[in-house]
Amino acid sequence: MRFEPAGREVDVPSGTLLSEAAQKAGVDVLMPCGGQGRCGRCAVIVETGETKRRSTQRLSPDAVAAGYVLACQTDVVSDAVVRVPPQDKIERRLTDGKRVSKVALPFSYSVHDQPLRKYAVTLEPPSMQDQTDDWSRLRRELSRQHGMGEIQASLPVLRKLGHVLREGDWTVTVVVDLDPLGYPKTADTPPAPPQLIDVLPGEHLETLWAIAIDIGTTSNHVWLVDMISGEVLSQQAAYNGQIARGEDVISRIIYASKGNGLAELQDLVMGTLNQLIAQATEERGVDPDEIYKATIAGNSTMIHLFTGTPPESIRLSPFITAVNQFPPFPAREIGLRVNAEAVLDCLPGIASYVGADITAGVVSSRMCEEGKLTLFIDIGTNGEIVMGDCTWLIACACSAGPAFEGAGVVHGMRATAGAIEEVWINRGDADDPYEIEYRVIGDDAPRGICGSGLISLMAEMFVAGVIDKSGNVDLTLPTDRVREGEHGAEYVVAWADESATGEDIAITTVDLDNLMRAKAAIYAGFSVLAESVGLSLADVEQVLIGGAFGQYINVEKAIQIGLLPDKPFESFHFLGNTSVRGAYVALLSEERRQRVDEVGQMMTYLELSADNTFFDAFNAALFLPHTDESQFPSVMALQARNAREG
Amino acid sequence: MRFEPAGREVDVPSGTLLSEAAQKAGVDVLMPCGGQGRCGRCAVIVETGETKRRSTQRLSPDAVAAGYVLACQTDVVSDAVVRVPPQDKIERRLTDGKRVSKVALPFSYSVHDQPLRKYAVTLEPPSMQDQTDDWSRLRRELSRQHGMGEIQASLPVLRKLGHVLREGDWTVTVVVDLDPLGYPKTADTPPAPPQLIDVLPGEHLETLWAIAIDIGTTSNHVWLVDMISGEVLSQQAAYNGQIARGEDVISRIIYASKGNGLAELQDLVMGTLNQLIAQATEERGVDPDEIYKATIAGNSTMIHLFTGTPPESIRLSPFITAVNQFPPFPAREIGLRVNAEAVLDCLPGIASYVGADITAGVVSSRMCEEGKLTLFIDIGTNGEIVMGDCTWLIACACSAGPAFEGAGVVHGMRATAGAIEEVWINRGDADDPYEIEYRVIGDDAPRGICGSGLISLMAEMFVAGVIDKSGNVDLTLPTDRVREGEHGAEYVVAWADESATGEDIAITTVDLDNLMRAKAAIYAGFSVLAESVGLSLADVEQVLIGGAFGQYINVEKAIQIGLLPDKPFESFHFLGNTSVRGAYVALLSEERRQRVDEVGQMMTYLELSADNTFFDAFNAALFLPHTDESQFPSVMALQARNAREG
Repeated sequence: MRFEPAGREVDVPSGTLLSEAAQKAGVDVLMPCGGQGRCGRCAVIVETGETKRRSTQRLSPDAVAAGYVLACQTDVVSDAVVRVPPQDKIERRLTDGKRVSKVALPFSYSVHDQPLRKYAVTLEPPSMQDQTDDWSRLRRELSRQHGMGEIQASLPVLRKLGHVLREGDWTVTVVVDLDPLGYPKTADTPPAPPQLIDVLPGEHLETLWAIAIDIGTTSNHVWLVDMISGEVLSQQAAYNGQIARGEDVISRIIYASKGNGLAELQDLVMGTLNQLIAQATEERGVDPDEIYKATIAGNSTMIHLFTGTPPESIRLSPFITAVNQFPPFPAREIGLRVNAEAVLDCLPGIASYVGADITAGVVSSRMCEEGKLTLFIDIGTNGEIVMGDCTWLIACACSAGPAFEGAGVVHGMRATAGAIEEVWINRGDADDPYEIEYRVIGDDAPRGICGSGLISLMAEMFVAGVIDKSGNVDLTLPTDRVREGEHGAEYVVAWADESATGEDIAITTVDLDNLMRAKAAIYAGFSVLAESVGLSLADVEQVLIGGAFGQYINVEKAIQIGLLPDKPFESFHFLGNTSVRGAYVALLSEERRQRVDEVGQMMTYLELSADNTFFDAFNAALFLPHTDESQFPSVMALQARNAREG
Repeated sequence: MRFEPAGREVDVPSGTLLSEAAQKAGVDVLMPCGGQGRCGRCAVIVETGETKRRSTQRLSPDAVAAGYVLACQTDVVSDAVVRVPPQDKIERRLTDGKRVSKVALPFSYSVHDQPLRKYAVTLEPPSMQDQTDDWSRLRRELSRQHGMGEIQASLPVLRKLGHVLREGDWTVTVVVDLDPLGYPKTADTPPAPPQLIDVLPGEHLETLWAIAIDIGTTSNHVWLVDMISGEVLSQQAAYNGQIARGEDVISRIIYASKGNGLAELQDLVMGTLNQLIAQATEERGVDPDEIYKATIAGNSTMIHLFTGTPPESIRLSPFITAVNQFPPFPAREIGLRVNAEAVLDCLPGIASYVGADITAGVVSSRMCEEGKLTLFIDIGTNGEIVMGDCTWLIACACSAGPAFEGAGVVHGMRATAGAIEEVWINRGDADDPYEIEYRVIGDDAPRGICGSGLISLMAEMFVAGVIDKSGNVDLTLPTDRVREGEHGAEYVVAWADESATGEDIAITTVDLDNLMRAKAAIYAGFSVLAESVGLSLADVEQVLIGGAFGQYINVEKAIQIGLLPDKPFESFHFLGNTSVRGAYVALLSEERRQRVDEVGQMMTYLELSADNTFFDAFNAALFLPHTDESQFPSVMALQARNAREG
């Protein structure tokens, strides 16, 4: 069969899914829902040939009539020609446009703060009088010159030893991990002998490289770290290559459980990370073989997929990870393109939905060292929330759904060029009180609305009275922008003639409902966490917001819709990507690395689905800003003022 | 190009060696010298097409005229058709014909003598109230139920954990190595946490399998061991698949240093071992995945090739191994087909030519526990000799050359069907005092003479006066059997009409010279070893003979030619393959395993090429039985009696 317009041909047996055939042909068909037939994004047109549809649920009768089928729900029957519409291009602009800012050293760093070492050693060459084997000879000198007792080595290092010793004329540089057993350690854990990671001919003490990795469901980050100075010398980011196989962790888990899905997802994320490593090392003229360690943070599903561990049980009640704390292992075992023997240290998570990204985030945020009652939140598809201080920590995760990532919203999109990221409804303008202004990423014509734009829009609509506290659009308003659309009442943000798509960009009641559920889930998480320890949100002294998305949230507007608790602006701190930052500090410091384990151990996990508390809190939060208005005094004051002025 | 008679075609660039082209085409061309152009055994006929000969040294002018070339010394120039003569078939009869004898337990064995364990564990299933991850849950129960503290696991085991726990409905069997760091241990070596090797659904405590392996240059042995009873349940042996790439270790090392040679030799031995493992497990209905450990003995070159470690420095002065003691590693790293995570424990050698086969042999022989002064010898291509008792040990290796393996002797052959293994010259028969009787392996017509047959023949010829003490054939004797042949004086052992080849089977002066050098090298080794510690061979209280070949030596005749020291028959003990036996006892007992290390540490290695002592002793031994006749009183007495009777 053939895929157009790429013109790629592929032979597949009858009964093969079109999506699989496309993949085999090397034609990208995005499946944000992971191939469950739920999202409708993988629609393709069968031009000739016979296929068999399993489901057309997500296609309109017109689309079906026009020959559209869902690639993930349609079997090939006979030789066919299939046309693939242009796919949502995933633009790699995560670090484009603006130069990434220099990362400050998190503490006064010394190379001795961490266990990676390089030593130069000169050996007496063997002779008839001293026929000691190469490996014993090296160990003897490491003991004499550097006080190292026992030392371990893997087969690949031992294999190269003889050549390297002779190539270096009996002077070599060894790379050693002084702490190879990894974490967690208890008082009884005996110290393990150091591990020889590499041996290089000659003396090469001037460099020592490692990387910090954050594997997000949406985006991946790699920081190249000079372990001698501790500095981050390159920051790279890209969308996770797995996105085409599912937007959220649930879709990925489902995809991983089918056929070769797990291996495929592992390959995809490895492809992304290897590309980022290649970019970082090229930028700094570093040989990837000289990267001897990687510390990895990410949510539990991402860590499972990265290590090739089946993640199924994460999704099924009672929601159990296979492994929260992976032991360190060599890079060659999963194909990460750094030195084959480089130590990969996956930071520990504590539960299926509170992963290493959160433990790393907490350590990097320093909330675990503070006396103040702190709320830490990482907002994305899932909102992970941690509350506590230096003496206790409690965490939960609430599934906000992908609305803040632009999915589940008709004109939603990711925060890339063409996305509306901020809006203002001109309440002050008496002539046209429901007119709107917006700011677009890249200053282009708008193509849709991203997460921060949606929060801003919902808040503005609420404050301007376009929607009521239940999120219903007031169709009686004297403006063309409110109207009855195909999916119920809607409000037009941008008209067809100003948009890049040639269509009106509007937000519908259904969209608003999805956003309402998303913000309610997060706020309910805050509430339940506080309640569970007998506190109220009013007791919280500071709110730390992590995650790349968090950086772009307008706090004032997030409070107006009841997404964030009503606190003074100074209480909020935006920390950016706390996950990669946590991986970085754990890489730099054995003590901070140990702290990640301790944080994991001290953190109590609250499973929100265990009883009805969360459900009740969620229902209470399904209003703007909340059923209990007393929790949002500043919003109430604003509304009162508007009412007076209006 | 094409190879006949197989009819295999292959495309190779001009300039490719014929031997490489043959290998690529899957056509076996034996290269006993490892492709050095020394042995002449890889001769093939170029029927059409152009080739370029590098050397024809080993071909007669007639052969060259007939189109013969050496495959290892000839480049392909144009498309060619090459005919490969029938290759010496390597017969796998090492264990055929006679049922292997049951191996007695070397001591009163208990499964607790060694560190491999199986435990059944039943876990509380996870719940909303206890969301502990699978891996922590398993560790928790191993600690509670079996008192195990920390435990390590590799990625492949962690990957399967979730599925296995659920498949076993939360009852699983774990396989653990309590001592994963391996040897050698010093007093400072902290105990390492046990290693989880496998996890199986349900309870399976009834079996626990491991194997003992001996990798000989010529033959490989695999013993399947029931670790619960300690019994050997299957013994398998085959010729090492590397033989086609070189008969001796030097040829293999040279072969390994060229192109892809190392990987190829590793594949070949792995192929042989995997075949033996398949046979052993089939015989006993065992799944190879249930073999959780292998203990491996072999000479240093064989261990290097098995692990894929370049062996070059073994052959070059000052003769250094890369690694005498490999740390344990999982089977998957080299492709041995047992459980992928099975622990492979390569026993330690002490020098390039005194390998793990000898340390293992010494431990299995128990000479290291005895008060008696003992001489241990393993005769093969190399003769490794150890002298000492429970308080000291000294070892050396002398290169005897391959004469005892039937190479370097015109009618020499391996000890397979058709080999003459014992001869008697009818000195008593006055009518025909130089007539001969012989015994052939398999009772066939003779095809050649194997090592034990050569020793027997040389001794009989010497005692009967067919050769003098320098090994010269007496052409004046009144028998047709002595004659001037193509290669000088020779003695006919079997006439053309009684042989399977249709040719006379004779032994020539050149052959006798090779045999003389072989026996002289070994005896010189004994002498130098004794001298080096201020002792004489007369002080030796027992002689232990290891090696498969050793078993078939007729001691009386070996003494007559001066190969073995002149001692009463009761002083000699034949131990058979002490190498595989040593691997077996090391597998069974942590204490014996530790003893192999201790033996390695206590054994002094004497490098014979370091000064002229060996050379002098070797020259003194180049006579029958020896220059110093006083060392062989029994042989002198026999000769005196024969002279009286003759």
